[in-house]
Amino acid sequence: MNVIFKRRSVRNYLPDAIEKDKIEKILRAAMQAPSARNQRPWRFLVIQDRQELDRLSEVATNMKMLKEAQAAIFTFFEKDNLTAPLFVQQDLSVATMNILLEASELGIGNCWLGLYPNLERTSHVNKALGTPENLEVFSLISLGYPKDPDAFHYVDRFEPEKVYYEKF
Amino acid sequence: MNVIFKRRSVRNYLPDAIEKDKIEKILRAAMQAPSARNQRPWRFLVIQDRQELDRLSEVATNMKMLKEAQAAIFTFFEKDNLTAPLFVQQDLSVATMNILLEASELGIGNCWLGLYPNLERTSHVNKALGTPENLEVFSLISLGYPKDPDAFHYVDRFEPEKVYYEKF
Repeated sequence: MNVIFKRRSVRNYLPDAIEKDKIEKILRAAMQAPSARNQRPWRFLVIQDRQELDRLSEVATNMKMLKEAQAAIFTFFEKDNLTAPLFVQQDLSVATMNILLEASELGIGNCWLGLYPNLERTSHVNKALGTPENLEVFSLISLGYPKDPDAFHYVDRFEPEKVYYEKF
Repeated sequence: MNVIFKRRSVRNYLPDAIEKDKIEKILRAAMQAPSARNQRPWRFLVIQDRQELDRLSEVATNMKMLKEAQAAIFTFFEKDNLTAPLFVQQDLSVATMNILLEASELGIGNCWLGLYPNLERTSHVNKALGTPENLEVFSLISLGYPKDPDAFHYVDRFEPEKVYYEKF
């Protein structure tokens, strides 16, 4: 059973630091994602500094998991010069998905917090991060080795009634 | 090296049929994806009938790969009663990503065609499929065993200049 089936949102983390080479592997996975017309509009900001994680944990109530997290990856998209601007959310979503899967593969707990297109959320986060004008924040992934040794386990989410064969 | 790094868009297929149990495995992977507030707004229509694939290949110029494909999965989202409507594109994107990854894992070539939110594209496709009123088509994935025996191979897509550490 591959990691797709064992990935779960993990919000409670051990105090162990995440190795730099694992962070890079996760970012490499992110950029293996497909994008519309291969526009690759993504950017990534990695925070591992304890004080900075603590500060960011207070930017919004739903960012409290950063208090325990050992790393945060914020994803952004380039706002200008896109060849397929309609599909930018999809490009960033699949890059985020690859982050979740690769982190899980490495045994690193992870949780996705959706930011864009909730513009109230993004305005707070962009301000706190000092996001450059040409970028917009899209998602936040918190990372940390899981407290629960059984954090990654299969839960069947199949809903056969949501599948149609040949016709509706 | 896991499948994230070996997945690629594959548009040329062998005439071999895709086994039903593999189609189900792929749909199971799709539904393992996370969704905003766990709303799971996705629906899936699987087409394996040759005549129907041929008919659909002519709906739009960018759907021609269905002429050779041995299966098509159309994804849809429920339009009503969503708890997090802003995030529906993200939910469907990551379900689509899991389809690509699981198909690749099974050695099945796959290619994602983005439909929503290009409303000109979706209106044609919804009409051709007879999509129910409460659903909207989101993406099309064509499937088939690859003609190229080396279809799945690693190409490094890492762009280190798109990563920031600790600050911009």
